[in-house]
Amino acid sequence: MTNFPKIAISVGDLNGIGIEIALKSHNTIKEFCQPIYCINRQMLEQASILLNISIPDDFNIYETFGDFEIIPSKATKEAGIFSYLSFMDAITLANIKNVDAICTLPINKEAWGKAKLKYKGHTEVLRDFYKKDAIMMLGCSSMYVALFTEHIALKDVAKNIKTNKLVKFLKDFISCTSASKVAVLALNPHAGDGGVLGKEEKKIRKAIKKANKIFGSDIFSNPLVPDTAFSPNNRKNYKYFVAMYHDQGLAPLKALYFDESINVSLNLPIIRTSVDHGTAFDIAYKNKNPNTKSYINAIKEAISLSKK
Amino acid sequence: MTNFPKIAISVGDLNGIGIEIALKSHNTIKEFCQPIYCINRQMLEQASILLNISIPDDFNIYETFGDFEIIPSKATKEAGIFSYLSFMDAITLANIKNVDAICTLPINKEAWGKAKLKYKGHTEVLRDFYKKDAIMMLGCSSMYVALFTEHIALKDVAKNIKTNKLVKFLKDFISCTSASKVAVLALNPHAGDGGVLGKEEKKIRKAIKKANKIFGSDIFSNPLVPDTAFSPNNRKNYKYFVAMYHDQGLAPLKALYFDESINVSLNLPIIRTSVDHGTAFDIAYKNKNPNTKSYINAIKEAISLSKK
Repeated sequence: MTNFPKIAISVGDLNGIGIEIALKSHNTIKEFCQPIYCINRQMLEQASILLNISIPDDFNIYETFGDFEIIPSKATKEAGIFSYLSFMDAITLANIKNVDAICTLPINKEAWGKAKLKYKGHTEVLRDFYKKDAIMMLGCSSMYVALFTEHIALKDVAKNIKTNKLVKFLKDFISCTSASKVAVLALNPHAGDGGVLGKEEKKIRKAIKKANKIFGSDIFSNPLVPDTAFSPNNRKNYKYFVAMYHDQGLAPLKALYFDESINVSLNLPIIRTSVDHGTAFDIAYKNKNPNTKSYINAIKEAISLSKK
Repeated sequence: MTNFPKIAISVGDLNGIGIEIALKSHNTIKEFCQPIYCINRQMLEQASILLNISIPDDFNIYETFGDFEIIPSKATKEAGIFSYLSFMDAITLANIKNVDAICTLPINKEAWGKAKLKYKGHTEVLRDFYKKDAIMMLGCSSMYVALFTEHIALKDVAKNIKTNKLVKFLKDFISCTSASKVAVLALNPHAGDGGVLGKEEKKIRKAIKKANKIFGSDIFSNPLVPDTAFSPNNRKNYKYFVAMYHDQGLAPLKALYFDESINVSLNLPIIRTSVDHGTAFDIAYKNKNPNTKSYINAIKEAISLSKK
């Protein structure tokens, strides 16, 4: 066991489903990693009683500071602060190399708002902390989608398609994944139909050409027609996709792999994976057996990335 | 057999895969409809020889005017003109009520360009011909997606989200489908996250409210977060989806149901369905057994709509 990678787990919002998932998956994940949970004994016991799940003997914790009343399914300031501190502890463990990677359970954006935290979520924290262009990639072993633009309004997407920025993104993407073949999506319907339905494909094509030249090989596809990019045939040919915007990549991914998908932050000094779902207040502390696939996959991906 | 609905079939671009699909599916579809193929004997025999498929005895044709040399997999002016005339004949048969519906095999846009036709495709012809706001809907029996905006550049989508236009669209949609429950998608990632990622959701919400009021029932959902709109759970709850733009709806649809999907033109005086693929010049006349699912589903949908 001592050879298994160490993974710091931030427990997310304790009013949500994260801690139930962590407790229920412990026996599974300890078969391939040494988890260190960023929580404290008091909070853990409180959750364990509320959930009626006993705490495994080998549930190693790293003492996160804080003590508050868990109110199932409620966005509270206290839960927001605790989830932030748990995340900070996980980052610290990774920075001092006490762990090989971190895996985050879901925080609640409203709770972070109530706690007056200046970040919207994990990725923003990481970007600010490390001053690096983190790449957001979601997926599962069958298919990964990296997002060139992320949380911006749809009307702003087109003007954010810039050749040089895309070249850098593609370069960073390869240095993080070592992918040998990547499908790059066009922006417009029918990939612009020769300019009739939008002209951004010119810039995308140029960026792909430059990036392929840098690597001396046609790693990146021509801009794919977005609506057929995720056809069964293309998914046989490609495992990695670069989408130009959030829903272009994530709607097909979640249509196909809703339960098993995870979130990875690439291009950072530390390895961070995350579940691909929220706090699910509708089922928290209700003995509804939340799906643990995304969490277990996120742990596995963290391990696999840490070995690279 | 005489009670089966009559379906006019426009054969599409004869240099492509359409006629092979029609010939190979005839014995299947005659079990539930009376197909009338808009082609002529000479062209049919030419295709039959090239394909090495014999013409079924009961392959009823409606004589479309024209005679040219089939050049497999090539976009030619002559094939473009013939496919247009075949389509016109199918429309005529529907107009004079000699058929219950029409089903179209794929035309080639480049060939239509070479033929100097002023339309980009079937739907444009129908819209111009009938001066009606045809609604483009794609899907299969498991899931249908109607498109509020269609063939426009991504950067123009947001400004085309207008409350009153959407109310009319939703009204028309119900009068064509009699759907009792429709999922309407938001425009922006996370449905705008309370306005932080775009403000068009306000207009969409307003349109939904108005439309629900008109029908005196909550037929239309609140604007759904686009990337999770097609989750397995939502697909259990909804069969009909309204997407705000082309790839938002079609990328998830084609990720899930690439082979079986079809295209329907709603809100027209005639019923028209179509396959959801192109002329596939890469496999035309190569004995590669093109997938006939989309075609057979398109015929079935035409029949089902004609019975409503």
